[in-house]
Amino acid sequence: MNSFTFYNPVKILFGKGQISSISKEIPAGARIMLTYGGGSIKKNGVYEQVMEALRGFEVLEFSGIEPNPHYETLMQAVDIAKRHQIDFFLAVGGGSVIDGTKFIVAAMEYEGVDPWDILAKREPVKKAAPFGTVLTLPATGSEMNSGSVITRVSTKEKLSFGGAYTFPKFSVLDPETTFTLPLRQISNGIVDAFTHVLEQYLTYPVNAPLQDRFAEAILLTLKEEGPKAIQNPKDYDTMANFMWCATMALNGVIRTGVPTDWATHYIAHELTALHGIDHARTLAIVFPSLMRYKSETKKEKLLQYGRRVWGVDAGTEDECIEATIQATIAFFESLDIPTRLSDYEVGQDTIDHIVKRFEERGVKNLGERADIQIPDVKEILTMSL
Amino acid sequence: MNSFTFYNPVKILFGKGQISSISKEIPAGARIMLTYGGGSIKKNGVYEQVMEALRGFEVLEFSGIEPNPHYETLMQAVDIAKRHQIDFFLAVGGGSVIDGTKFIVAAMEYEGVDPWDILAKREPVKKAAPFGTVLTLPATGSEMNSGSVITRVSTKEKLSFGGAYTFPKFSVLDPETTFTLPLRQISNGIVDAFTHVLEQYLTYPVNAPLQDRFAEAILLTLKEEGPKAIQNPKDYDTMANFMWCATMALNGVIRTGVPTDWATHYIAHELTALHGIDHARTLAIVFPSLMRYKSETKKEKLLQYGRRVWGVDAGTEDECIEATIQATIAFFESLDIPTRLSDYEVGQDTIDHIVKRFEERGVKNLGERADIQIPDVKEILTMSL
Repeated sequence: MNSFTFYNPVKILFGKGQISSISKEIPAGARIMLTYGGGSIKKNGVYEQVMEALRGFEVLEFSGIEPNPHYETLMQAVDIAKRHQIDFFLAVGGGSVIDGTKFIVAAMEYEGVDPWDILAKREPVKKAAPFGTVLTLPATGSEMNSGSVITRVSTKEKLSFGGAYTFPKFSVLDPETTFTLPLRQISNGIVDAFTHVLEQYLTYPVNAPLQDRFAEAILLTLKEEGPKAIQNPKDYDTMANFMWCATMALNGVIRTGVPTDWATHYIAHELTALHGIDHARTLAIVFPSLMRYKSETKKEKLLQYGRRVWGVDAGTEDECIEATIQATIAFFESLDIPTRLSDYEVGQDTIDHIVKRFEERGVKNLGERADIQIPDVKEILTMSL
Repeated sequence: MNSFTFYNPVKILFGKGQISSISKEIPAGARIMLTYGGGSIKKNGVYEQVMEALRGFEVLEFSGIEPNPHYETLMQAVDIAKRHQIDFFLAVGGGSVIDGTKFIVAAMEYEGVDPWDILAKREPVKKAAPFGTVLTLPATGSEMNSGSVITRVSTKEKLSFGGAYTFPKFSVLDPETTFTLPLRQISNGIVDAFTHVLEQYLTYPVNAPLQDRFAEAILLTLKEEGPKAIQNPKDYDTMANFMWCATMALNGVIRTGVPTDWATHYIAHELTALHGIDHARTLAIVFPSLMRYKSETKKEKLLQYGRRVWGVDAGTEDECIEATIQATIAFFESLDIPTRLSDYEVGQDTIDHIVKRFEERGVKNLGERADIQIPDVKEILTMSL
């Protein structure tokens, strides 16, 4: 097992009706900015529950945080929040609203010249305003980690940041808030969470059997609960299980002491940045090709994954690996997530464009062995055409 | 799945050499009390590593915290720490030293009349002095939770407390610190961690498949790594895996959203209080009988445990359950942990004594269904004779 540091101070309030307890988690007298997205929370009753829970607090609303939250939008929120001396933020929504709010709270307290440097120059975040979240879309795990991915529209860049100061103080996970989600978002959430686990699991063995089994536990549960969630998105237990899987997939627990990959995410972000394809769908496009391309260096874990998650154990090693990748693709496709670039009308020109962007950015050494270079990215994307 | 709150802010520093990084985790200028036990840390090099890491801090030592730490001893530490205006505590040792230090830090800041009330009257702990830990014995999980069990010698009482204020600020888990442990302590640690998982798992199903699989992941890993640890207690990876299992067994993760039992612990504590039998051994005595006695209400989980952890799936349900309990007993015995009261020369008179103490204390409603009463305790203990 590798050495590691683990720290996750997020308080989780899980279950039906938990929104009502958030006032106990926010400092008395706080001036709150409520951040949210396109307004779905006004249709599903979540907004009313939150406002009821915040009665007695001064609350300023900032809506319109878009999917793949825009730097430009978030800087408007920072400007407004500073003018109104906001001292607590409450993000209500999915990963985009939460990621966006993490950038807002970091930018609020940023002492450098330009908060964009947090992303572009990876300037460390040394403090941040406090915030909580009410999660309405299980997917990204942002509700229980400190990471965030932000898009700058003007330059079509999608960049990430994180650190010890951007953990939510608390996150409410009430499965009932997911009952009105469009099926497309549920599918995306399942594939997103599933891929998060794979990025931390499908590398090489380091004798960390507990972490392996924890990762497989999430994969097996998503495999079981995912199709049920699509069939019956108002079943409380199903949505609760899916929700808790998505949170556990990226809260640091399964990453302890093991190598991680993240090349799929790094490459896939480009497809969202350039074409606006849903994040989860870009993962489903890149992941299978990356596995095939790196099947030699990932062999042991691919065989273990196939055996323990998909019951694949017949044939040669190569046959098992191909059957395992096929099972994964079939799982994604069964959730109505197409897995080829052509399904999204994306072709060779986009691959060339991504290669050019990576060359400009000097991208190198992706993956758990730092052995994926730009020509490899080109091959992987070509395999996904 | 049941509703739940999860909160665990302990920072884990895991791996070889991590002791050297503790000075970064302690406030500059802190006056530190170093708490430890019988002095084994002076023989295995841990004391030197800690003192080296604390160079530049003012450090006062308090040694002699015994197994099943004594209220009387701990109050001496409180007295000394107050006189020396100690403002940070560092517990170096196993669960007893860590549990004891939790009581010290709570008593330091206790504003009521008598700190004993924290245990006897379950007075809530509203603040506590900060502390960190260096774990040298994987077993209790105390390094990553806020719970503590304290024994009062004068009255032979063993009582627990916990709460949001007695989490360590950090815990160092360096597998190398375990290399010189006596085999008896390794065996005890494996059984202790294993039973911690069972207390949170062998109840009744609430449709929480991820939590079930996480619990099974720890059980399967302890089943594999436990015997290896006994065989080769200087194998880094083996001890690392055992150590991380013991921590994950009781840091709150597997308890989220599921019922818990803890009747085995409650009853077993009496055997330690009255006869000084090692904590893990008392669990191994009580647990099998409790499972047999409650096999009807625990049926579904017992069958699942047998199937998934021990591969038991032949015969009637009753036969499967008995085979599962036998497999558990065989596992304990293979680690040189006897499982009957007679193995410890304890007889009927002790059972009568425990029943009397429970009657005096008004004990009732133990177990996940609150259906274990004093006559049931008597039957369970009698089955362990």
